This record gives sequence, structure tokens and C-alpha cells, in this order.
Amino acid sequence: MAQNIYDRPDFFAGYSRLPRSVHGLDGAPEWPAVQRMLPSLAGARIVDLGCGFGWFARWARSQGAAEVLAIDLSDNMLGRARAATTDDAIRYLRADLESLALPEKSFDLAYSALAFHYVDDFGRLVRCIHQALAPGGCLVFTIEHPIYMAPSRPDWMQADADRRVWPLDGYAQEGRRVTDWLAKGVVKYHRRLDTTINQLIEAGFTLDGIEEWNPTPDQLAAIPTLRDEMDRPMMLLVAARA
Amino acid sequence: MAQNIYDRPDFFAGYSRLPRSVHGLDGAPEWPAVQRMLPSLAGARIVDLGCGFGWFARWARSQGAAEVLAIDLSDNMLGRARAATTDDAIRYLRADLESLALPEKSFDLAYSALAFHYVDDFGRLVRCIHQALAPGGCLVFTIEHPIYMAPSRPDWMQADADRRVWPLDGYAQEGRRVTDWLAKGVVKYHRRLDTTINQLIEAGFTLDGIEEWNPTPDQLAAIPTLRDEMDRPMMLLVAARA
Repeated sequence: MAQNIYDRPDFFAGYSRLPRSVHGLDGAPEWPAVQRMLPSLAGARIVDLGCGFGWFARWARSQGAAEVLAIDLSDNMLGRARAATTDDAIRYLRADLESLALPEKSFDLAYSALAFHYVDDFGRLVRCIHQALAPGGCLVFTIEHPIYMAPSRPDWMQADADRRVWPLDGYAQEGRRVTDWLAKGVVKYHRRLDTTINQLIEAGFTLDGIEEWNPTPDQLAAIPTLRDEMDRPMMLLVAARA
Repeated sequence: MAQNIYDRPDFFAGYSRLPRSVHGLDGAPEWPAVQRMLPSLAGARIVDLGCGFGWFARWARSQGAAEVLAIDLSDNMLGRARAATTDDAIRYLRADLESLALPEKSFDLAYSALAFHYVDDFGRLVRCIHQALAPGGCLVFTIEHPIYMAPSRPDWMQADADRRVWPLDGYAQEGRRVTDWLAKGVVKYHRRLDTTINQLIEAGFTLDGIEEWNPTPDQLAAIPTLRDEMDRPMMLLVAARA
């Protein structure tokens, strides 16, 4: 079972204050790039894996999606999502992505934002998603980039007076990484980029594109801290077709 | 035009002493992984882009390839390759990958080992290769990994007494990188991994798999310096289909 960190009060309190929690999709700088990867949502049956506060589910409905099954492990997140939703075409469901089961050929889009890096058995998960998609259905997801996940101490290091670097090590060693982010002892699973891509292909997906997200010049001007993303990617965006 | 570094005497002398130059394919630790990506060579028409001393061309013929067009920019390399070859089904050709032209639908396999990172316009190159492959033909290539290429100072750094790290910066900034390896002023072109993959897909390829090469336990035991590859990948292997 994946760690249910979002139901720990300290983590949840911190998470609730992040720009993406307060402002929703537009608070996430990668959102314009994610949107470009999405297929047309008109009439689409969608499953959202790790739905959080339900921002995407509600936005998808505003774009004409027929129905959204929005899944999360956290009672905190689901409680907030349900309270913000008055729409019978969005169903919320508590489930663990580590042991997820979905009905066959039932969705046109599987979407997930920054959730899959909490899952240990990615191969199992993508096989589950593949069989749940209608032929030609899309999978669009974001995860923490393996360059960001890998290091034994994932924090910037001053190399010289004028050079700050990301101290990469352990990239080939996949598996559990425990970090302190918003709370102590957050458990994530590092996978190399080749593993992520090859497990998708082995599950039957065709890769449509990936993006090692980095900011536009406008975004850099507006949010100077995004400069970090020029030196090492924090997020990986993936689009694939069943 | 790509830099013709292999025709500089200092570089060529150093390159000629590398294990992969002395021992051929078996001197390259990634070779078993590359072999697993190759299609059956029986009867195959092959183009080898950056053929070097011609080791792959001769091996491919020993595996039943019908013919090999082996291309390189370096007269040094081609001279050595020709001298080592007595086989009319291998043709050697001097050409620059930056402005390569190949006949349409003429090959079953395009192969390239550690050459494409010398090329600036990768998009142009892969479009050229795509039109040159017969439908279903394969492209298998290795390049320096972008994690290896990106840094402003691509060399190990001692972070603490017991921690040595690869100092990543500038990952999102694509383009020219000048390093000293075997000789001063070697010009290579850094591309993010997403660019490499997306330009293949945009050219019409279907991705079959990638490998961020790292050694097996047996290889690690035999060549302890390969430990470096566990901390940051140096090579990327790619297989795609036209």
C-alpha cells in the first residue's frame, strides 16, 4: 500500500497552502504544458488517478467531459473535493494506486498529476490503466523527474562562488526514497526515465511525447525561483496512447 | 558542418588507444545491451552512421546482413576501416551527418554508435533517416546521455568525505558544449532527453525502448570504474521503428 501522507495533519496543512492548492490548476506552472498534451475532452469518460482537491475533475467537466471518476487515497483530499463539487457526473472514490482495479475499456482518458511517484509497482499500475482505456484512449500524467528523485541528498549545493549545482548520485539505483517535504519521512519511489517509458511500451502503450518541464521566459520573469528548473528538471510530463 | 575532431592527430591518437578501439565491439561495455535492441540482421540492408573503424559493419555482415553502407566524416577512421575490410558488400562513404542525404526506403536498419551528439540539427537528421528506412525498418543508436552532456563543468565533485556527486546544471539549456576529452575543444551538442524522443516521434518513428545504460553486477566486478554509471548515466541507447 502506498504511504497515505496526505492524511497526516502536518503534511496536509503544508500542502493546503501551496499555490496549486490555493489557486488550482492555474497555480501549477506546468499546467499550460499539460493542457497541450490532453486530447479533446468533449464527451470523454475520464479517470483521474490521485485527484487531490478535484480541480482537474471539475475543469474537465467544464470542457465537456461526459463523466469523471476521481480517485484518491486520502480522506482529507476527498473530503475537500466532495465539498467543492456539485456535479453528479463526478464520482469520487477512495482507492490505493498500488492495488487499483478498474473496469475494462471504460475510459477515454486516464489523467494523473504528481501521484505515480508514490507508487512502487509502476508496471502493474500501467497494465491496469491500459486495459481500462478504450482503444486509442490516452494516458497523460506528470511525475517528479528522476533527476529530482534520485539523489541521496536532493538539495542544491554551492560548487563555487558563482556555481550552484544539483548533486546527482544513485540515478541507476531504483526504489524507495525518503525525504522531508512539508513533513518528515515522505516515501517516494525513484524510477529511471527508461523504466517509466519502457514499462509503458511493454504494457501496450504508444508514446506520444514527453516533456522535461521547464518554464517559458514569461514564467521566469514572473516567478524567478523557477530558474531552478533550468538547471535540473523537477517534473516529467508524459503522453501515451492505448 | 560537424566538427571533424577524429582527424585531429592528438584526438585520433587518444581515441585509437581506447578499449573500444583496440578490442572492437566487445571492448564497449554497452554492446550486450545494444545487441538486445537490434532486429535480426539476416538479409538486412544497413546504414551505419559514424562507422569509425568499421567494427559494426563487419560484425553485421558476419550475422548475415546483405549490405552495409558505412559513413563517417573522418578520413582517419575511414582509412583504418577500409584497410581492415575485404568485403565488397561493405561500402565506405565520407559524409557529414549534419547535411546527410540518403536514398528513399533503402535500408532495413540505421545504426549509429556515439555519433549523434556531434550533430547540431538532430531533427533534420532523423527526418533524413526516417525517409531512408523501409516501412517497419529500425533505428538503433547510442548517444552521450544528456545528464552527462549538460553540466557547465562535467566532472565529479566531492560533496562530503563519503559522497561524490555529478554536478548537474544547465540541463534545460540546449546547444553547444565544448569539453576537453582526448584533446582540447571537442564540440558536442546537448539535447534534453525529451527533445531526442519527441523529434523521433515527430519524424514518424514509433519508440520501441530506451536504455540509460548501466552495468550488470558482473561488469561492475570486472571493471570497477563502471561504478560511475550507477551514479549518473553516460550513455543513452534508443530503439525506434519507421
